[in-house]
Amino acid sequence: MNLKQIGVIHSPFKTRAEAPFQGRHSVEVCEVEVFEEFLPGLADVEGCTHLFLLRWLDRADRKMLKAFPPHDGKEHGVFATRSPNRPNPIGLGVVELLDVSGGRLRVRELDALEGTPLLDIKPRFSEVDNIPDATVGWRR
Amino acid sequence: MNLKQIGVIHSPFKTRAEAPFQGRHSVEVCEVEVFEEFLPGLADVEGCTHLFLLRWLDRADRKMLKAFPPHDGKEHGVFATRSPNRPNPIGLGVVELLDVSGGRLRVRELDALEGTPLLDIKPRFSEVDNIPDATVGWRR
Repeated sequence: MNLKQIGVIHSPFKTRAEAPFQGRHSVEVCEVEVFEEFLPGLADVEGCTHLFLLRWLDRADRKMLKAFPPHDGKEHGVFATRSPNRPNPIGLGVVELLDVSGGRLRVRELDALEGTPLLDIKPRFSEVDNIPDATVGWRR
Repeated sequence: MNLKQIGVIHSPFKTRAEAPFQGRHSVEVCEVEVFEEFLPGLADVEGCTHLFLLRWLDRADRKMLKAFPPHDGKEHGVFATRSPNRPNPIGLGVVELLDVSGGRLRVRELDALEGTPLLDIKPRFSEVDNIPDATVGWRR
C-alpha cells in the first residue's frame, strides 16, 4: 500500500507550534499545488464549494497509540482523537475552495504545514457528509 | 509514504456490483476488526456516535483521472467525484458506531467490500465537520 504524492501544500504555517488545532479556526489562505500529471483529475473541481483534502502528515509520530488532545488534557486512544500522530498519518480536513487556476487551488480553513504532501481531493457533499448530531463522548 | 494495515473490514458486500454507491444509503451492519497491536488506540472510541473510517480500496484502478458518476452519467475529473478509482484509493466515509467489543467495531452506513484493509479511524466532531451549505457544481 504505497501512496503517490499528487501535489504539495503551500501554507503560512512552518512548524507544528504555528498551526491551529483545527483548520476550521483558521482564516489564513493556503495554496494547494497539484502536479501536472494529475491535472485532468481537477476537471469540475472549481464548482465545489468545499473539499476534503487528504494529506500525508510527514512530521507525525507513527508509533503513538495514545494522545493528549488540547481539549481536556487527558490521555485518549489516537483513534478517538484527531491527533496527527497515528499509525497512518493521513490528515483529513474540510476546506473552503476560493478558486482554481492552472493546477493551483486557493483554499481557506486549512491547518496543514508548508510543504505537506497532497494525497487526494474529494468533493464534500452535504447529502452524505452532514451528520448534525455526531458527538464524541470524552469531549462532553 | 507507506501505509500500515491496522485492521480489516468484514462486510456483506463481496463485489463492487453489490456495494451501494454511498454508505449513507446502506442499512447493513458491518464489522471492523482492529489488529491486536493497535488496540490501545481504540481507548474511548466507544463514546463516539460517528466515525470516519479510512480504508485502502484495494480493488480500485489507480490510473483513472476521469470518472462517470451514477448521478449524471457525464465524465468529471476524479477529484470532483467520490469514485473509488483515483491515484490514491483511500476510501472515506462516515459510519454510525453501534458498539465496540474486544477490537471489533459494529457499524452501520458503510459501503466497503469484504476484506478491505483498514487504515485509520477518526472521530467525527460536529463542531468542525458540519458544513450545511457545501455544494458541488456539477451535481446541481
